[in-house]
Amino acid sequence: MAYELFYWPGIQGRGEFVRLALEAAGAKYVDVALEAKGLQRMQKLMADPKLARPPFACPFLVDGKKIIGQTPLILHYLGPKLGLAGTSEADRLWAHQVQLTLADFAVEAHDVHHPVGSSLYYEDQKPESKRRAQQFREIRLPKFMQWFETILERNAKPRIPRLVGSRLSYPDLSLYQVVEGLRYAFPKASAKVLRKTPRVLALHEHVAGNPRIAAYVTSDRRVRPNEDDLFRNYPELDG
Amino acid sequence: MAYELFYWPGIQGRGEFVRLALEAAGAKYVDVALEAKGLQRMQKLMADPKLARPPFACPFLVDGKKIIGQTPLILHYLGPKLGLAGTSEADRLWAHQVQLTLADFAVEAHDVHHPVGSSLYYEDQKPESKRRAQQFREIRLPKFMQWFETILERNAKPRIPRLVGSRLSYPDLSLYQVVEGLRYAFPKASAKVLRKTPRVLALHEHVAGNPRIAAYVTSDRRVRPNEDDLFRNYPELDG
Repeated sequence: MAYELFYWPGIQGRGEFVRLALEAAGAKYVDVALEAKGLQRMQKLMADPKLARPPFACPFLVDGKKIIGQTPLILHYLGPKLGLAGTSEADRLWAHQVQLTLADFAVEAHDVHHPVGSSLYYEDQKPESKRRAQQFREIRLPKFMQWFETILERNAKPRIPRLVGSRLSYPDLSLYQVVEGLRYAFPKASAKVLRKTPRVLALHEHVAGNPRIAAYVTSDRRVRPNEDDLFRNYPELDG
Repeated sequence: MAYELFYWPGIQGRGEFVRLALEAAGAKYVDVALEAKGLQRMQKLMADPKLARPPFACPFLVDGKKIIGQTPLILHYLGPKLGLAGTSEADRLWAHQVQLTLADFAVEAHDVHHPVGSSLYYEDQKPESKRRAQQFREIRLPKFMQWFETILERNAKPRIPRLVGSRLSYPDLSLYQVVEGLRYAFPKASAKVLRKTPRVLALHEHVAGNPRIAAYVTSDRRVRPNEDDLFRNYPELDG
């Protein structure tokens, strides 16, 4: 049976980290919100009073009778099934640790344009965003990217930069997505940082060249970046 | 061999979620930063260029040769070993999902006093904090607490409110800690919300009455709440 991914339509958002793993593995999945009445089905499921263990938010994955929320947990669950979590238990734990750090970074990238609250529009928190963006560009962005560079550098095994072991893993795909998002949202700031992280760049290039990923990102299934998404291009926040 | 927990001294912070699990299980552990030269040892380990898989930040746990970062992952790893992750694989995944949501909430509670950036002092971001605090009190705090109440309500099995199955689990301990933190940081706002979440309150009471937890929180090992911590009492942010 195909996996069912429940997530908001119209944005890449957190759902994209899951989509990239499913696409790279060539797994069968249904992006439920894109189907007729899919969004209604998602909202009905989340509000179902008979559901003993409802997810707090989307994305969530339905695999038969299992319902799994929280992006890093979805990937932790799918990773071994899709062959994207290394080859040992230690690899699997490490992949999860890296993904949790990528998830923390995604929150920070989001909160650049929503430092006061996600219930308000960006337009209602522009001065706060401008201050937070400076902190993000100067401190947080280099700190996270340097950590990714360091762990790529110390993973001596593979010829190609890999975050986990010597094969493609789901954190590799997520780091690719983060670089895509950063280049869209912060073209100047990300160019500056990426000049100092050649292995992150090489990983990004390699994932972009993966035939399944290349086919996916040029397909209609890939949502185009936009200003309702996690990564948003507001030039005033790029310094 | 005893577990070694590496975390900043002087605050409860994220380390406390791990400490509560270790304490409730009566597990042997060393709080490394409290030992002579412990903090130096932590910083040396994090900066060790020979460490192939360094954690991005503390807390991290050392268990023999394993080094595990990210609070929810530490608890996911320890949970079954400590008998605090339910009794089935489904329970273990659910415990992790709940913990990841608690971790998301902890970030939001922290960012109330640091909406611009964690490198700046609170005093340098007071107007922004005031706006974020309002959003937190009125929208985020009730939303998260209502979700915890709902999942406690739907867990029909136990006589005592439990987040996972019918026995004490590490998310129960973390939710206890969150209630403690909220009452310290937002006495007015949390009292208002907790009136509507009787099961969360009952869970808190029950954990507080656990003999090991009661002994721990009155011991010298428990750091007292303070304004360097995750939960901070700034009356102007309590509405």
